[in-house]
Amino acid sequence: MSARLLIEYDGTHFAGWARQPGVRTIQGVLEQALSTVLRRTVPLTVAGRTDSGVHARAQVASHDGEPAPARSLNGLLPDDVRVIESERAADGFDARRHARSRVYSYRLFTRSALSPFERGRACHWPYPLDRALLDGCAASLAGTHDFTAFTPTQTDHVRFERDVIAAAWREDGEHVLGFWIEADTFMRHMVRTLVGTMLDAASGRGSEEAFRELLAGRPREEAGETAPACGLYLESVRY
Amino acid sequence: MSARLLIEYDGTHFAGWARQPGVRTIQGVLEQALSTVLRRTVPLTVAGRTDSGVHARAQVASHDGEPAPARSLNGLLPDDVRVIESERAADGFDARRHARSRVYSYRLFTRSALSPFERGRACHWPYPLDRALLDGCAASLAGTHDFTAFTPTQTDHVRFERDVIAAAWREDGEHVLGFWIEADTFMRHMVRTLVGTMLDAASGRGSEEAFRELLAGRPREEAGETAPACGLYLESVRY
Repeated sequence: MSARLLIEYDGTHFAGWARQPGVRTIQGVLEQALSTVLRRTVPLTVAGRTDSGVHARAQVASHDGEPAPARSLNGLLPDDVRVIESERAADGFDARRHARSRVYSYRLFTRSALSPFERGRACHWPYPLDRALLDGCAASLAGTHDFTAFTPTQTDHVRFERDVIAAAWREDGEHVLGFWIEADTFMRHMVRTLVGTMLDAASGRGSEEAFRELLAGRPREEAGETAPACGLYLESVRY
Repeated sequence: MSARLLIEYDGTHFAGWARQPGVRTIQGVLEQALSTVLRRTVPLTVAGRTDSGVHARAQVASHDGEPAPARSLNGLLPDDVRVIESERAADGFDARRHARSRVYSYRLFTRSALSPFERGRACHWPYPLDRALLDGCAASLAGTHDFTAFTPTQTDHVRFERDVIAAAWREDGEHVLGFWIEADTFMRHMVRTLVGTMLDAASGRGSEEAFRELLAGRPREEAGETAPACGLYLESVRY
């Protein structure tokens, strides 16, 4: 038997998903709650490993054996992480390997004064932006590209091509501009570096052509800065 | 000359609007920032005094003399309060006395597990609700009523009638049910006690008829509990 967890978290006060000794991680607090409820060690497999400060609205994780009741887990978990569902899954279900694609969003808050309700929940960007250029860059992302320019040079990744299924900027409420991207898998910092590079271009420090050229495996130093973690959300995982 | 401020705040870590010695209040931190920028004492008049833990998306305050630049004030303020606008107003403008009406909303988060992103931003209500009954109660609020039942017995209010311009429940996003109400002025705890009483009725502990009777000046003990502060937002002020 296997179990599937659907998890939501505010990543602000976590050192990311992956368990590490001595730091507060989402995997760490979840595995601790699971081991308390199930009375055994329960290693989790996750669909999208998120970095420090990155949020998730619907992360998916799996483990072997019986599921633990979501209510019991939530009774033990800190309130910045919540198990939305904890259910039986098909035997051998693997949240990472069986995922067909992941959807991430990146939130920009564009008003001059950052809303107190958006602290840690969006990147504050109160500067002019060439929206047509942002849209042009996003449109060029669909398809298979080499994203070497969009992940740190020191890397564990061995393959740098990714299949982008869809990418677009859209208004996500008053003063909020969101970038949405779906791909088979993502490399470390990939969405944040895509956003940082598009923001450079849309602020007059680049062009759509230059952005498109970066998608052909250019080196990291030719892309822009990595946008702050607090604007990034793992929105969903498709199977 | 007079000045008008438009202010947004997350009320979680404030002991309400009104300045009080030794506690952190929105009026306190704003008047301190104003006095630093304008180099004089600047008493503020406010459209809607909010209680401890209550939020505001567009509070309005006024003071005599030149406005201070919003940017300078925001540079001095803590990040849970932001000045959105700070502008000249007509001579003698009074944010409280010139306001024609205030709009408040109350957010309920109805999913079984509270979203980490709604902590302190909504009241968690994962119980069944008779939505038709909620709508019926809200519909009965329009017009002039005596709200004695919906404010504490110990009170500074001298007049208990209020004119409700509009009131309604509506879906405010996934798993969020919002109560919106506009009235000339509000009494202390009025929205929260209306919500608490409607939730009682919609949970089988009351009826639309009983709710309607409370609007005729019944005593406080006949109404329900005061709903938690964290779900309440001063949304806007009309002039």
